[in-house]
Amino acid sequence: MSRDGHFLALAGGVGGAKLANGLTQVLAADALTIVVNTGDDFEHLGLHVSPDIDSVTYALAGLNDPVRGWGLAGESWNAMRAVARLGGPDWFALGDHDLATHLLRSQRLRAGETLSQVTAAFARRLGIGHRIVPMSDDPVRSVVDTDEGPLPFQDYFVRRRCEPAFRGIGFDGIADARPAVGFLDALADPQLRAIVLCPSNPLLSLRPILSLPGVDERLRARRVPVVAVSPFVGGDAVKGPAAKILRELGVPVTPEGLLSFYDGLVDALVVDACDADWASCSRLSALATDTLMRDPGDQARLAREVLAFIDDLPGRSAGA
Amino acid sequence: MSRDGHFLALAGGVGGAKLANGLTQVLAADALTIVVNTGDDFEHLGLHVSPDIDSVTYALAGLNDPVRGWGLAGESWNAMRAVARLGGPDWFALGDHDLATHLLRSQRLRAGETLSQVTAAFARRLGIGHRIVPMSDDPVRSVVDTDEGPLPFQDYFVRRRCEPAFRGIGFDGIADARPAVGFLDALADPQLRAIVLCPSNPLLSLRPILSLPGVDERLRARRVPVVAVSPFVGGDAVKGPAAKILRELGVPVTPEGLLSFYDGLVDALVVDACDADWASCSRLSALATDTLMRDPGDQARLAREVLAFIDDLPGRSAGA
Repeated sequence: MSRDGHFLALAGGVGGAKLANGLTQVLAADALTIVVNTGDDFEHLGLHVSPDIDSVTYALAGLNDPVRGWGLAGESWNAMRAVARLGGPDWFALGDHDLATHLLRSQRLRAGETLSQVTAAFARRLGIGHRIVPMSDDPVRSVVDTDEGPLPFQDYFVRRRCEPAFRGIGFDGIADARPAVGFLDALADPQLRAIVLCPSNPLLSLRPILSLPGVDERLRARRVPVVAVSPFVGGDAVKGPAAKILRELGVPVTPEGLLSFYDGLVDALVVDACDADWASCSRLSALATDTLMRDPGDQARLAREVLAFIDDLPGRSAGA
Repeated sequence: MSRDGHFLALAGGVGGAKLANGLTQVLAADALTIVVNTGDDFEHLGLHVSPDIDSVTYALAGLNDPVRGWGLAGESWNAMRAVARLGGPDWFALGDHDLATHLLRSQRLRAGETLSQVTAAFARRLGIGHRIVPMSDDPVRSVVDTDEGPLPFQDYFVRRRCEPAFRGIGFDGIADARPAVGFLDALADPQLRAIVLCPSNPLLSLRPILSLPGVDERLRARRVPVVAVSPFVGGDAVKGPAAKILRELGVPVTPEGLLSFYDGLVDALVVDACDADWASCSRLSALATDTLMRDPGDQARLAREVLAFIDDLPGRSAGA
């Protein structure tokens, strides 16, 4: 089992952050690039908020709140209470500690730094050695098409708590957005060993990344395995609205349903042990294991299993 | 003793806020305009911070911290700790609750509202009936001339804790700054009864207001008494760097020293009982009383005494 080569992980927020954190425990800093969705970035209270980048950064820094599942451990909410007192919008909860991230990021972006630069600076400052790269430094804004009409992502996701029925998703700005340099570097890396689709929502979190101009072509052109880790466990999603959304689209909440979003891009799939039956008769290479990541130990264990699975893949991986 | 007419109070931060709050307890909402210094406003962490306006607003809302003397009661400092963790500047302490004010103000200013509008909206929201008016909606930035060269106000005042020797003060932008409409309205009010210079620093807090184009002329043209309340008590300042600054300028920390900054503008002076000797032989009308304001009761008591003193003034006030 070799750890040579570079791994590219594509991640959304919570679930993606967990596996990404596991990978950092198993792979050297220069052997991994984590590219993170920015489709759910938005401006709030005049601040640039990047929820998925922050989830990944906080997880890798060991600062995330594992109970709440998002944001920082030991968070307080006094600023939000004071915002409400002044009649401001408090539907999107920005914690007091978390606010520092948004304040400093917004200030640096306004001063001309790229999101990649700010993300890297914060990661360095928090002692993170591995590369966290926003999918793009250009603005991409996910818009959810619902039975009540189009809703900006956070309006759908947080303000409306995913209640409107999901019809589809689009990405404002995507046609003019370039993949971030760090993303392109990883895609072009001669040492690229595999691409891991973390257990994030395939539509809300991974599709924005895969929809960036040139990304899908580049991923397919690389002769390295693309391995997806399923966010589903026995017909439900571990967290978040994925299961509800799939049902609204008439797509089964199964490994097969997951694959339907990737249009042949995925070479191999890691599914939960609950879906072992599916794995045993899959036409794809498949690994069935415990995909629940309750703590950093679980995260590292799953990361190790995913990498071992990649090492054992037949065909394309051997030729890479 | 009559309470007819309109009163115009000019105020800086802490001491000014205290007397302003006393005046609101004694005067009806439509009988008082409080014009507040904005020379110490600045941009910090990408936010528009208006320290003196906030001091006055928080005091009038009963939300100020009377022990610390600035900011909000029950404040927490988690955002600042997180700013420091990310390597950001933490020399200017923005409390978690206080941040809400700066966030919402900055957002509204960027959206095109004036500082007057935002200030009025926050006051309304916090249940304040009296008018709080920034001296100008145009940017004025105090710059302190020190023995180490010029320093932006908050660099001098907070970051350097007033340690460099004070040589003078200038106001960037003042030549192009118009007094706020609410200020001009009060100056032009036919019912204007008196102008009160609150016990704020004469150079740092009141001079910016008095230096706005047209303000000094308008004040002198009105035939109403201008009454200053001294911020000095027996050769020292109640709070802040005023005494240190006066010594560095070679000006005595006395009522006479205070008057030297106002160039004949002031008709009558309220001094502390410690300075009763000066008051008794003053060429100006003078009232000596306890000027320390320990609590809202003290503030109302002093406000009542100031207004009674104005009612009893000879000459100009009778002709107004």
